[in-house]
Amino acid sequence: MSYEKLEKRFQQLHHLQHLQAICSWDQATMMPDGGNQARGEALAEIALIQHQKLTAPEMQEWLDNAENETLSESQQANLKEIRRRWMNASLLPESLVQARSLAGSRCEHAWRGQRKNHDWKGFEPNLKAVVDLTREAAQIRGEALSLSPYDSLIDLYEPGMTSHTLLKIFNELKTWLPQIIRQAGDIQSKHTPEQPQGPFPISRQKSLGLHAMKLFGFDFNHGRLDISAHPFCGGVPEDVRITTRYDENDFMSSLMGVIHETGHARYEQGLPKEWAGQPAGEARSMAIHESQSLFFEMQIGRHPAFLRKFSPIIKRHFGDDPALDADNLIQIYNKIEPGYIRVDADELTYPAHIILRFEIEQALIEGKIEVKDLPEVWNSKMQQYLGLSTRGKDGLGCMQDIHWTDGSFGYFPSYTLGAMYAAQFAGAIEQEVGDIGSLIESEDGLPHIFDWLRRNVWEKASLMSTDEILTLATGEALNTAWFKRYLEGRYTAE
Amino acid sequence: MSYEKLEKRFQQLHHLQHLQAICSWDQATMMPDGGNQARGEALAEIALIQHQKLTAPEMQEWLDNAENETLSESQQANLKEIRRRWMNASLLPESLVQARSLAGSRCEHAWRGQRKNHDWKGFEPNLKAVVDLTREAAQIRGEALSLSPYDSLIDLYEPGMTSHTLLKIFNELKTWLPQIIRQAGDIQSKHTPEQPQGPFPISRQKSLGLHAMKLFGFDFNHGRLDISAHPFCGGVPEDVRITTRYDENDFMSSLMGVIHETGHARYEQGLPKEWAGQPAGEARSMAIHESQSLFFEMQIGRHPAFLRKFSPIIKRHFGDDPALDADNLIQIYNKIEPGYIRVDADELTYPAHIILRFEIEQALIEGKIEVKDLPEVWNSKMQQYLGLSTRGKDGLGCMQDIHWTDGSFGYFPSYTLGAMYAAQFAGAIEQEVGDIGSLIESEDGLPHIFDWLRRNVWEKASLMSTDEILTLATGEALNTAWFKRYLEGRYTAE
Repeated sequence: MSYEKLEKRFQQLHHLQHLQAICSWDQATMMPDGGNQARGEALAEIALIQHQKLTAPEMQEWLDNAENETLSESQQANLKEIRRRWMNASLLPESLVQARSLAGSRCEHAWRGQRKNHDWKGFEPNLKAVVDLTREAAQIRGEALSLSPYDSLIDLYEPGMTSHTLLKIFNELKTWLPQIIRQAGDIQSKHTPEQPQGPFPISRQKSLGLHAMKLFGFDFNHGRLDISAHPFCGGVPEDVRITTRYDENDFMSSLMGVIHETGHARYEQGLPKEWAGQPAGEARSMAIHESQSLFFEMQIGRHPAFLRKFSPIIKRHFGDDPALDADNLIQIYNKIEPGYIRVDADELTYPAHIILRFEIEQALIEGKIEVKDLPEVWNSKMQQYLGLSTRGKDGLGCMQDIHWTDGSFGYFPSYTLGAMYAAQFAGAIEQEVGDIGSLIESEDGLPHIFDWLRRNVWEKASLMSTDEILTLATGEALNTAWFKRYLEGRYTAE
Repeated sequence: MSYEKLEKRFQQLHHLQHLQAICSWDQATMMPDGGNQARGEALAEIALIQHQKLTAPEMQEWLDNAENETLSESQQANLKEIRRRWMNASLLPESLVQARSLAGSRCEHAWRGQRKNHDWKGFEPNLKAVVDLTREAAQIRGEALSLSPYDSLIDLYEPGMTSHTLLKIFNELKTWLPQIIRQAGDIQSKHTPEQPQGPFPISRQKSLGLHAMKLFGFDFNHGRLDISAHPFCGGVPEDVRITTRYDENDFMSSLMGVIHETGHARYEQGLPKEWAGQPAGEARSMAIHESQSLFFEMQIGRHPAFLRKFSPIIKRHFGDDPALDADNLIQIYNKIEPGYIRVDADELTYPAHIILRFEIEQALIEGKIEVKDLPEVWNSKMQQYLGLSTRGKDGLGCMQDIHWTDGSFGYFPSYTLGAMYAAQFAGAIEQEVGDIGSLIESEDGLPHIFDWLRRNVWEKASLMSTDEILTLATGEALNTAWFKRYLEGRYTAE
């Protein structure tokens, strides 16, 4: 059967992807600088071999034959994903794939040093090489998929999503979000939370993070926690590697970062074992992935009920400081404050960071602006949306994210889509299982929440589309009303 | 040019080997248990792809064509090594390779439990299967390479070495080594060194090991130190990963282990950059590799001058204990004591362990003894060489090593060859550069020693044979007189 040959091919690809994932994790966490050149070449080689296996001449024949074979519903879903993968991979010439991998690796590595020095001049030529190759790829993809170049990139991270839909959604947010921000600001102006004073020893921060991971059900037999410049969730479902970074003077952002990555990790660890190694068994999309990390962070981690429960554990690590009282932590962790850095942004101003990047990416990929314009365009939009100038501070501006360094344009909208999906899932849980605050407060409430996510999201993997997952789990496709209701409840109730 | 195609193929193989090396390192140092199944499958996949690329049909044609192309001397050396690799990979039928791999993995797995129970009866049939298949492989290899079956196995670990030469060398050792052992015993019986008392905190042991690595010139921009159950030197020349294990009650064996692995590491880090990725640019042999680790450990690490220099640094880590005085450390680190276990043996009794294994291996592969005879043959040789009986204690006897369980016959001589090469290199340095003790004592003497090794060994890689390396570096091929002079100087001078 051709379908079986396809499954076998993807099992092989899964094994190669395993090596690639672990070596990429190592590159970000363990590798000394001097190893980077050789690592980049090795990763480019394995990417090339994967690409060759995925686009080998026999694949098209197998795919066409498999369409006429008798398959179960799941196998049909798998076949659909296999075809999607094959299309995505076949569209681009091999030389372009390898050139993008090399340019990305070089740009990302140099960026680690350049960012903190606001070294735009050093960064610019590396990024230009990445953008040039990304435009070339987007052009080819767009033509083949009958999408605009930028839409063809968005489709990589949230299949089926378009800039047209995003524009509509973002415009809806623009109608009601400023009002919530204003109301929240008024309420929050009445109290000034007290910033906990360090130092907070790294070893205790690590221990606190591990404690949170246990509480959130991370499986340490199939994963670990390490340190990297930019936190991420990597590895493979059988061995999920999450990372954080520590600041001796601030434990709070690392703690919430660990909870966030734990959400990504549990999604990976909870994918259906019987579909391991097959496209249908992998995470649905980056946006659904982000919905899980944001669920963990926003719907649980920053929930007042959770912080009331966790405050005594924090105090056990850092001492009985009044700044570590639950009420104070709740205020800090839900504080609204426009800032430069997306990853540090609060939930209400975060969409502005995304809308800004969405608009810049679309213009950049479609050639309406150039790499050299980025600092100025960024600065002007930041002034407009958040009233902040990034002039001469590109490390806090257009150089702040890792995504562009390796050509991941089209990715950013996933964050805000994820936030909206998470709120929609939380709403459905409140209807089906019970009030989230009460579940957090109760002895075994968290596992009930995780079980709902496992059944409704993790185990669905890519066996259906995002719209189908949302509809089965919540009764409808994406509807921004759930997000609005959640934000109002969290930020405007006094 | 066919030669260029071969170089390109080996560049690819080098990249795949990079991923394999880093993921194997990760498996031993970082990976949680639950990731083992998936890791094993991924590593098997990449091994298969490497084998396929190395034995692909076009290889023979490229090799034959390249023989007639105009090549530089180094390219000719590379071509010779490429052919060697290809021969070694192509000689054995797939079915035999697979059968050996299966039998080896079964024997090794069961051995882990059987060894500590001295369960010879359980071990015997598994080992017999391994030996039968190894004999078959040795037969095929021997015929193809015009070597005796056993020599065709030795050739895998030290190309060009034969059992005829080993016999001659080992017979020489037998004429003078027992006398040195007796004299050393007499001298050492006059003092009983004092064992340093712990606990020695792991963090300080690690810091001490890193200090030693710096002193020995380890390039931390191209490598790192971690922890594993069994110490090893892994990774790739561009990023060498060495490991150690710590015992809170004994810092001494970890420290010397780190120095030993640093010797392996500097060889790898010092291989010629312009031949990176090509067989001619790789380490010459297991025996030369061991000569570098033993040079670092024996010729420098356990040298009285080094321990006098290093004692104050050890005291800075663990406090001013008289047991950490240089004189006491010198006695412990050079203590002679016959024992059952090879890996715990001192430098003077180590060759007896190797000669015993060499004689048994040769007889076994050539059918003069059978697997069932091993316990008795081992016991009788141990009585003869070291005065120890292993009757009924096969776990301390013929079952102690992992090597035979997976069919690595022919490997053991490399250890003693390495010790002799190291002594010969040290003798040449004394003639050319200066007294090793004085070099160690002087401010910048160690770098002079390392520079000599770099020029004479590391940068030679596999661009010439072991005999050529030795002759260029020391004026002659292997000559046991250098080893004798070194051992007499270290152990019989009062």
